[in-house]
Amino acid sequence: MTAATYTGARTFTTAEPTVGPPGPGQVQIAVAYTGLCGTDLHIFHGDMDARVTMPAVIGHEMSGTIAAIGEGGAGWSVGQPVTVMPTLSCGSCPACRRGNTHICHNLNFVGIDSEGSMQNSWNVPADILVALPEGLALDEAALIEPTAVAVHDVRRSKLVASDFVVVIGGGPVGQLIASVALQQGARVVLVELDPGRRETAKGFGIIAIDPREENLVEYVLRETDGAGADVAFEVSGAAAGVNSAVEVLTTRGRLVMVAIHPKPKEIDLHRFFWRELEMFGARLYQREDFEEAVRLVANGAIPARQLISRVVALQDVEEGFLSLESGGVMKVLVDCREVTA
Amino acid sequence: MTAATYTGARTFTTAEPTVGPPGPGQVQIAVAYTGLCGTDLHIFHGDMDARVTMPAVIGHEMSGTIAAIGEGGAGWSVGQPVTVMPTLSCGSCPACRRGNTHICHNLNFVGIDSEGSMQNSWNVPADILVALPEGLALDEAALIEPTAVAVHDVRRSKLVASDFVVVIGGGPVGQLIASVALQQGARVVLVELDPGRRETAKGFGIIAIDPREENLVEYVLRETDGAGADVAFEVSGAAAGVNSAVEVLTTRGRLVMVAIHPKPKEIDLHRFFWRELEMFGARLYQREDFEEAVRLVANGAIPARQLISRVVALQDVEEGFLSLESGGVMKVLVDCREVTA
Ligand SMILES: [Zn+2]
Ligand SMILES: [Zn+2]
Ligand SMILES: [Zn+2]
Ligand SMILES: [Zn+2]
Repeated sequence: MTAATYTGARTFTTAEPTVGPPGPGQVQIAVAYTGLCGTDLHIFHGDMDARVTMPAVIGHEMSGTIAAIGEGGAGWSVGQPVTVMPTLSCGSCPACRRGNTHICHNLNFVGIDSEGSMQNSWNVPADILVALPEGLALDEAALIEPTAVAVHDVRRSKLVASDFVVVIGGGPVGQLIASVALQQGARVVLVELDPGRRETAKGFGIIAIDPREENLVEYVLRETDGAGADVAFEVSGAAAGVNSAVEVLTTRGRLVMVAIHPKPKEIDLHRFFWRELEMFGARLYQREDFEEAVRLVANGAIPARQLISRVVALQDVEEGFLSLESGGVMKVLVDCREVTA
Repeated sequence: MTAATYTGARTFTTAEPTVGPPGPGQVQIAVAYTGLCGTDLHIFHGDMDARVTMPAVIGHEMSGTIAAIGEGGAGWSVGQPVTVMPTLSCGSCPACRRGNTHICHNLNFVGIDSEGSMQNSWNVPADILVALPEGLALDEAALIEPTAVAVHDVRRSKLVASDFVVVIGGGPVGQLIASVALQQGARVVLVELDPGRRETAKGFGIIAIDPREENLVEYVLRETDGAGADVAFEVSGAAAGVNSAVEVLTTRGRLVMVAIHPKPKEIDLHRFFWRELEMFGARLYQREDFEEAVRLVANGAIPARQLISRVVALQDVEEGFLSLESGGVMKVLVDCREVTA
């Protein structure tokens, strides 16, 4: 059994641990692929050393097949393709008491706060399993977790098909949000500085503009008969992105705050008042978002395959992170399948 | 006929204009009382000279009785007590097209953008009239407009009776929001630095705390079994008020932005993301808010009389503004009734 373990900033070590059989309520997954995301990159940079327990097996965007079933794992079968929804909630905090278990105050995020999927063989609680349809390619299935983020973000926006949507930031989550919104019938424009990312979006049928070449507000006013955008997703994490989102919205427009802004940002509260704007924080996903994401990836509504820029071997995780930080890629997957000689 | 006219910063002049009969679609009101609000005070300070056309008759929180009815004013009768909803919308801008006429892009706010009620006799379009029930004292009725603001703010918060509510800022609008929320069954705490305003709130049965003496977040956590507030109204206009509102909310808590923040303020967007907070701008009112405000003032659910600190004569408007700016008062009314010798 091989696992990639994070042992400190910029360092992954290949380990050969022995994985026991799945315990009661657990299922053992033969992991196929693990996607790398921005949070994983933060871990790679050493920015989350206070939170992860080293040596750490990370990874939370994954796909695989069931290898073994522990006691009480009825309903699952060996060989079945699965992914996991990587959140474990406490059930008793104020958020959980109201059914918002995904933003549990004591959330255990699997792959950060507990062992993740960058290994061949992984024991997980059966209740975080999500079944995959037969025939869905397992590399594409590793995109289900970020797609679930996008589905949740779009749901938080209360999108309707007549909406005009602005997505600010064209990384994988921005591309997925734009794709989900488009798929729900909205008109969508993606705002992105990087020409390669704009090209990627265009390949998905998404209009993408460079805000340095085209005035975003003027563009949207022209497209909306002077009204402005109904929905803006702030996915850039930049102060300019927040300002553009507020500026581009029509009266009663909805801003969904997707990006992580570690420091407080200035925001035009007068505009919120004057136009009766609305802002919604959006974090992670709920079970219904995850299941919708499975459907969208499985039926091809989301360009999962085209978002996969590169696949690296489990021994080459560091290389995967280096290409992620150098830019110019969308999703990098780690092939976690056991190498059989 | 006497009118108080604003002629430049800190100056009101008494004029004796001739008011003609009401034109087609108009009604003439014998004005009884006009309340002074923060916006009027801004005008008094000269801060809105670019917007008002001098000499200006201002005033938009009013009560009176119908004195004469122009052509097409069917359904109204002379002597009937009325107030006005002081907004005229264009009907064709993007906000109006969606039914949000109260935040019309070309809004004519009566009493600022056009002639207001600080005069004995006032011709207004019949369609901005709001009927008052017989028996409602006309001084109390001058509180209907700010009550409608509060009703709208509370409606924007999607309040339910089980909510715990924090109102930040204890001026007239804050007191009215707290009263409306209380009346709808919520638990309410008002946060206010001024001891006099806290006393006023206590007189209305509202719990009021001094955030310098009592830690607001700890207080609310204690009262909500560790959850935090469901709703916060930011009515203070202060940066500290914004921060407190964000900090005190529970997961998925709703922040209503009532105060005017002329300059962008820093806001903890990470908290919005992490707790999936929601923010709603709230401005003015819609017809249903105004009608609800009439009911609340008429049935005594709102402490209208107790909010009236002082009544000045039409000749003494300047004095009214001076007591408003010196603080220690809630509502100052101007008695606009014709003096009969
Ligand atoms: Zn991720
Ligand atoms: Zn919990
Ligand atoms: Zn006012
Ligand atoms: Zn309009």
